[in-house]
Amino acid sequence: MTAVDPSVTGKGVPVTRRGRRRGETTVAVVARLAGVSAPTVSKVLNGHPGVAAETRQRVEQVLREQDYRRPDAVTQAPMLEVAFQALESHLAIEIMRGVAQVANARQLAVGFTETASGPGWLDHVLRRRPVAVIAVYGAAMRREHARLAASGIPLVALDPTGEPVHSVPSVGAANWNGGLTATRHLLELGHRRIAMIGGPPGFLAARARLDGYRAAMDAAGAEVDPSLLRSGTLSYEDGLRHGRALLALPTPPTAVFCCNDLLALGVYEAARRAGRRIPDDLSVVGFDDLEFARWSGPALTTVRQPLADMGAAAADLALTLATGTAPPRLRLELATTLIARASTAPPR
Amino acid sequence: MTAVDPSVTGKGVPVTRRGRRRGETTVAVVARLAGVSAPTVSKVLNGHPGVAAETRQRVEQVLREQDYRRPDAVTQAPMLEVAFQALESHLAIEIMRGVAQVANARQLAVGFTETASGPGWLDHVLRRRPVAVIAVYGAAMRREHARLAASGIPLVALDPTGEPVHSVPSVGAANWNGGLTATRHLLELGHRRIAMIGGPPGFLAARARLDGYRAAMDAAGAEVDPSLLRSGTLSYEDGLRHGRALLALPTPPTAVFCCNDLLALGVYEAARRAGRRIPDDLSVVGFDDLEFARWSGPALTTVRQPLADMGAAAADLALTLATGTAPPRLRLELATTLIARASTAPPR
Repeated sequence: MTAVDPSVTGKGVPVTRRGRRRGETTVAVVARLAGVSAPTVSKVLNGHPGVAAETRQRVEQVLREQDYRRPDAVTQAPMLEVAFQALESHLAIEIMRGVAQVANARQLAVGFTETASGPGWLDHVLRRRPVAVIAVYGAAMRREHARLAASGIPLVALDPTGEPVHSVPSVGAANWNGGLTATRHLLELGHRRIAMIGGPPGFLAARARLDGYRAAMDAAGAEVDPSLLRSGTLSYEDGLRHGRALLALPTPPTAVFCCNDLLALGVYEAARRAGRRIPDDLSVVGFDDLEFARWSGPALTTVRQPLADMGAAAADLALTLATGTAPPRLRLELATTLIARASTAPPR
Repeated sequence: MTAVDPSVTGKGVPVTRRGRRRGETTVAVVARLAGVSAPTVSKVLNGHPGVAAETRQRVEQVLREQDYRRPDAVTQAPMLEVAFQALESHLAIEIMRGVAQVANARQLAVGFTETASGPGWLDHVLRRRPVAVIAVYGAAMRREHARLAASGIPLVALDPTGEPVHSVPSVGAANWNGGLTATRHLLELGHRRIAMIGGPPGFLAARARLDGYRAAMDAAGAEVDPSLLRSGTLSYEDGLRHGRALLALPTPPTAVFCCNDLLALGVYEAARRAGRRIPDDLSVVGFDDLEFARWSGPALTTVRQPLADMGAAAADLALTLATGTAPPRLRLELATTLIARASTAPPR
């Protein structure tokens, strides 16, 4: 499979093509070009098992080359499907709320799928023939993109932890600005020795937050001590591990900006075990504003991602694509907001 | 409306009736009996607006009296709908996971609705004509039950915070046993002065947990000091309020059993503000095992409700009802489990 699938590139976004070529290609034409029977093409379109991988690939290639669009895709499927990785479970409910708001206003049902449930999740989704799919994930799913495109189902990426695969319409948060705002908040409180615990190298959203941190430090003339820069998975466990290491330094930081709320809760635990008080001994800022951030002890200062609004925007974008209208833009970034609570204070 | 709707009573559960009477009543018959036109009956069945409340009530009454079942309900609606109150948002994702697992295995989509989104939520659901509805809530929704029954859509109640309205098929957790196990755990650690923060009087699940607490105390010959029994909403705020009051007593408790995890986190904050350490100065047990229980500082000992399993069981029950088979039982209680973490220890 080539890196850039022509059916999902910006210029040739499926909707545009549909208007131009709809109805030109039939299942029979695809079957002839692929050298298979029409029922085999139908099986591939509907995601049924029992088609050899090689055959499926050949059929999908012809479907893409011929830009096949199923004529019944929109009229028969009053549903918008949201596909989550298990990873985002603590973010999922707010996103669903936003998607459901838009979908219900348009009399559409909202489907819910977990991609971690098994490799067959896309088969299930294709059988249901949703109006569109919103994929919430960090990693690329290039093969899935191609199959959805071949079935004529628009895809929108919603990426609370990652930047989208290029060329797929997407909704995200203003990550760089969030990193800048969080760090400025700590600088304004008087902190200079500010650590950052970042995410894994592959997550561009994490990289954007780190760059925002660096920009704020540079603008304030504050030195970035390399020993205060850590990175890992966006997990409680890595927050605990890096928090312990930072607090064990000869000159520990007076504040830590964490790339997400789970990391911040891990730092809380590191401070608790080391007998340091938050915010008296250490200020902590998170990122996300998950529901439990306000229930942590003390309540967590964090950068809010507007997850419900992001879900609603993704639904709007997906439904615009599904009705065959070209959306005004293919990438939306929603503003983040600093929520100052009880985990930050001036250094002692 | 009468207190007990005949179409949703145990014996006359819709499925049984369907087998017996399916197809006997048509829209035309209902229209004649209600003194309205057939299109008006259709509007009521599909939840369309533009029918006067009085007319709708009359039509729904005839639908119930005639035990009308729409012949297309199952064949045209490959979807299982889950309706949440906003209240349960922190429980929702695990329940959805369990429902989706069962639904996907049967090639059904899972719909997602929030009842707090507005009074029209049921209209939206009825228009989508799901195979069945799983309602996750604490309070009774008698009117909605009647409308679903009139539309021939089975309803299953899933009640992590409340006991079901009588006679509606339901799935819950073994609340009494969970209360017993949590209290026994504290007694076995050596605590005698054990407080309990319970839920509001209307929540029978909260009452069952309290009764389990009392049973364990009685069996151990431990006195229940009335000043250690508190009740309120199942919220962080009430946990904080009652926690502060308990810690301010002349002889404070050495342990607190909380009716849910949010209350327990409120008690954490009360202890933090009072300078008491958990578990050194105070042991705390919660109920639910929400995702963030293990990320609280210290990790919370709690009674696990198997929410995903409860979602799966509710989906199984709903789909059994939808296929016209009488389920072996109309009330399922799934076992709860004590998860011992770091918030409980022997008293000093």
